[in-house]
Amino acid sequence: MKTDIEIAKEAVMKPIGEVAEKLGISLDELELYGKYKAKLSDELWDRIKDNEDGKLILVTAINPTPAGEGKTTVTVGLGEAFERLGKKAVIALREPSLGPCFGVKGGAAGGGYAQVVPMEDLNLHFTGDFHAITSANNLLSALLDNHIKQGNALGIDTNQIVWKRCLDMNDRVLRNVVVGLGSSADGVVREDHFVITVASEIMAVLCLANDMKDLKERLSRIIVAYSFDGKPVTAGDLNAVGSMAALLKEAIKPNLIQTIEHSPAIVHGGPFANIAHGCNSVRATKTALKLADYVITEAGFGADLGAEKFLDIKCRMAGLKPSVVVLVATIRALKYNGGVDKKELGAENLDALKKGIVNLEKHIENLKQFGVPVVVTLNKFVSDTEAELKFVKDFCEDRGCDFELAEVWEKGGLGGEELAKKIIATIESKTSNYAPIYGDELSIKEKIEAICTKIYGASGVDFASAADKMIKKIEELGFGHFPVCMAKTQYSLSDNAALLGRPEGFRVTVREAYVSAGAGFVVVLTGNIMTMPGLPKTPAAFNIDVDDDGNIVGLF
Amino acid sequence: MKTDIEIAKEAVMKPIGEVAEKLGISLDELELYGKYKAKLSDELWDRIKDNEDGKLILVTAINPTPAGEGKTTVTVGLGEAFERLGKKAVIALREPSLGPCFGVKGGAAGGGYAQVVPMEDLNLHFTGDFHAITSANNLLSALLDNHIKQGNALGIDTNQIVWKRCLDMNDRVLRNVVVGLGSSADGVVREDHFVITVASEIMAVLCLANDMKDLKERLSRIIVAYSFDGKPVTAGDLNAVGSMAALLKEAIKPNLIQTIEHSPAIVHGGPFANIAHGCNSVRATKTALKLADYVITEAGFGADLGAEKFLDIKCRMAGLKPSVVVLVATIRALKYNGGVDKKELGAENLDALKKGIVNLEKHIENLKQFGVPVVVTLNKFVSDTEAELKFVKDFCEDRGCDFELAEVWEKGGLGGEELAKKIIATIESKTSNYAPIYGDELSIKEKIEAICTKIYGASGVDFASAADKMIKKIEELGFGHFPVCMAKTQYSLSDNAALLGRPEGFRVTVREAYVSAGAGFVVVLTGNIMTMPGLPKTPAAFNIDVDDDGNIVGLF
Repeated sequence: MKTDIEIAKEAVMKPIGEVAEKLGISLDELELYGKYKAKLSDELWDRIKDNEDGKLILVTAINPTPAGEGKTTVTVGLGEAFERLGKKAVIALREPSLGPCFGVKGGAAGGGYAQVVPMEDLNLHFTGDFHAITSANNLLSALLDNHIKQGNALGIDTNQIVWKRCLDMNDRVLRNVVVGLGSSADGVVREDHFVITVASEIMAVLCLANDMKDLKERLSRIIVAYSFDGKPVTAGDLNAVGSMAALLKEAIKPNLIQTIEHSPAIVHGGPFANIAHGCNSVRATKTALKLADYVITEAGFGADLGAEKFLDIKCRMAGLKPSVVVLVATIRALKYNGGVDKKELGAENLDALKKGIVNLEKHIENLKQFGVPVVVTLNKFVSDTEAELKFVKDFCEDRGCDFELAEVWEKGGLGGEELAKKIIATIESKTSNYAPIYGDELSIKEKIEAICTKIYGASGVDFASAADKMIKKIEELGFGHFPVCMAKTQYSLSDNAALLGRPEGFRVTVREAYVSAGAGFVVVLTGNIMTMPGLPKTPAAFNIDVDDDGNIVGLF
Repeated sequence: MKTDIEIAKEAVMKPIGEVAEKLGISLDELELYGKYKAKLSDELWDRIKDNEDGKLILVTAINPTPAGEGKTTVTVGLGEAFERLGKKAVIALREPSLGPCFGVKGGAAGGGYAQVVPMEDLNLHFTGDFHAITSANNLLSALLDNHIKQGNALGIDTNQIVWKRCLDMNDRVLRNVVVGLGSSADGVVREDHFVITVASEIMAVLCLANDMKDLKERLSRIIVAYSFDGKPVTAGDLNAVGSMAALLKEAIKPNLIQTIEHSPAIVHGGPFANIAHGCNSVRATKTALKLADYVITEAGFGADLGAEKFLDIKCRMAGLKPSVVVLVATIRALKYNGGVDKKELGAENLDALKKGIVNLEKHIENLKQFGVPVVVTLNKFVSDTEAELKFVKDFCEDRGCDFELAEVWEKGGLGGEELAKKIIATIESKTSNYAPIYGDELSIKEKIEAICTKIYGASGVDFASAADKMIKKIEELGFGHFPVCMAKTQYSLSDNAALLGRPEGFRVTVREAYVSAGAGFVVVLTGNIMTMPGLPKTPAAFNIDVDDDGNIVGLF
């Protein structure tokens, strides 16, 4: 069997103009980045903005396990399958981060015959969006420290600076740093921290902005510090908005690439799925909806984090309404949830499957709470047995969900045709009554409690005294109407990564909270969230090279 | 009179494919970055690499003054002029740095009707080359600190780490930092420093590399630290070369843009002109020579730094041989060298001109020492009087130099035609006997003395004891055959910025020296060199914005 990278390398790409043509985009409306990548121009948006919207299909998954679920693979395969069925469709994905490519393993997007290409470009610099975000983030930091050095007219308390520098690199020694050492010409000494670029609030801002005007307004609201008298100091106060916007002028435009079957793929933005909302950009999704009849997109992590934020944050802010949600699982992951060791997942085990399927069950119930029709799919593995597959199918259908296998890893679009047909049938037969799980008018604590009890299945929420104080301050500052963005382990429905399946009777502990005023949500921390990864003992970087023919090798 | 930015904004660009066609480059050989920027592909190089070389024309200048000289303007105007004369010509420039755009003023390239466009793109992210260098630089840092954290098998002495992180930002608080604070999971605590990206040795390496193979070899030789037993630890030792090369795979390809008269301009690389050699990339220059009959390029700062390094470092390493050097001055700058206050440069002052022209005289003598024919040009200002112009013309011709005015700021290519004709006549009538000013076999100190006495006009060199020790160690490590790269003030021929004109009887003090083993030269410091600028009280960033039509405003 070929590896993902072998399959990707064998793919013969079409010029991106030909791919764009499938969506009715002319070459003039593209800004090319080499032969196989393009940005979608402002002119394109102006032409299509009054088109009718296509149907929005969200792909999400059960809680991630080491067994792998293949959410992106299903998303990509569905794009290919819809096209095979003669439908006008496009997929809308997030961009991968550069830094982690040098850490444990490379990124890639999708797998097998359901991948987007060019893979190396996508995982390295792509069209420079993340570099632009890094620059804008660090320009804000430089302007902040310069303001302090030049007299600190805003009275910024250097012990209350919340804005951090960033780099798109796994670099643990930058987590906690002291800057400004040396003489007085070298600025004011203070503690600082670097986060990885995807954790920058500018990433979240870029992904939630409707357009340049909205982007600038959001940038302006970003809180960088508090003054000695406790007032927020914003990027707008620092006069940093215009120059950040100039740096982000191209980055706000969605990117177009292709799947290995030449289906169009809009790949744009990639915020963290814990301290941010984890979805591709609003602008990309909206553009996709104007261009195609079916837009297949995905959210980060499992449905408790990714889909919840997609539905409670992104859809709420952007006025989006998904027609259907595709919930991805694998027999292997369900058995893992049922307590089977990773090495023994290949053997049939109906008891473990029965025990572990409660994780899927809870996610089905959750999605129904949002009023959206659900189609469950299993990303098929060779080790899956007929009995196991039948069990899951019956289980889903008993719960009023449509069910279909996905064989896109092995067969590409062909292996997704039945699933695509099922999705279309669901869209045509079932109405989406999408509504967020909580209203804007609830207090921050009520919103947190709604998510924890309704979605996670907790019996209640405990607030550490620090969190209490922070939430009170956030509401006093006038941000009480914001949605909440939960930072929680992705491995469990609970806030304890070790609790697989469908934990019950647990209480969630909220340790901290802060406002991302530019993004427009309150981040709620239930544990330590790593916003700057490190490199392992033998980094993936050691295997990466450029061969004598100028090809990158060892990236995956 | 229109400003540079108004002129640039009014320019109607041609699709870059049409510009490339003038050099016989097909669309297939370009990698487009939007409609008006492209990278020159490896395939192009493979096709042209055995072509005969065109003539190489170096543009340099007297020591820079606040009055302005317009070296880049002349370079760009000459490209336009050669084309007007029906010649196949291309200019080869350096890329500007992003960070300084937010500091005192924007960058731009050229002025008046002799500019390259698109100006905003060029000065912001351009084709991402500098971002790629930033990433590669900081990946090396991350791998270095990770090596130490994971057991430090190479025995790196954290007090002898010479590799610095970098950002393309004016950010003074990053000059001196402490990294690795926190718990042991956050790495090992040490002092570190950030430089601006153009000061990274990787910039110099990229600009001196012939091809990917050479790039990798140079990267491998970069010294990042010394071990406890005093041995150099290299990027190769850290196993960092392949992944850095992967990050630089696109950045090594030259970029093609156009002048506002649609002449082709290859713009690639931009190393510092003090701690590095200050010239565009070898690969860009070589590509240009294969594509055109005349290649007009420039070097950083005045001729004592820029031209000296172009001739002693770049030409030596890359086997280049300039046919002629164009030495740019202005009447205003010469009068400034003669002691006239900046505000009074508009008035005729033949006495000051006579007094100040000794600066030009020394640069003429210097260039003749390299065996290259010299054409002097004056970048014409409206305030220049006939008597002043005639004085300079006679002065130059008395010294065996050709002379011609340049009026390219006001008239574009038309204003450079006479100068271009003079250059062609010089090339056809005079032979270039180019040779570097010192041989490889001299000791490091002898090389430094050769430059200081022959080029700067010093009576001798004093070595601080630290410099003595460092030079000894560099020679012991086997780098004695390297050329030297002088870091000196650009404002004077001496190492004292206040000494204008043609200082004599001074001694140069060498304070420090270190080896850039990847670039392949020994950096010699004669004073404090700022490798990370700061922002002023009112940064240029405050004026930059994106208007409602999506255009960047206030960048210049």
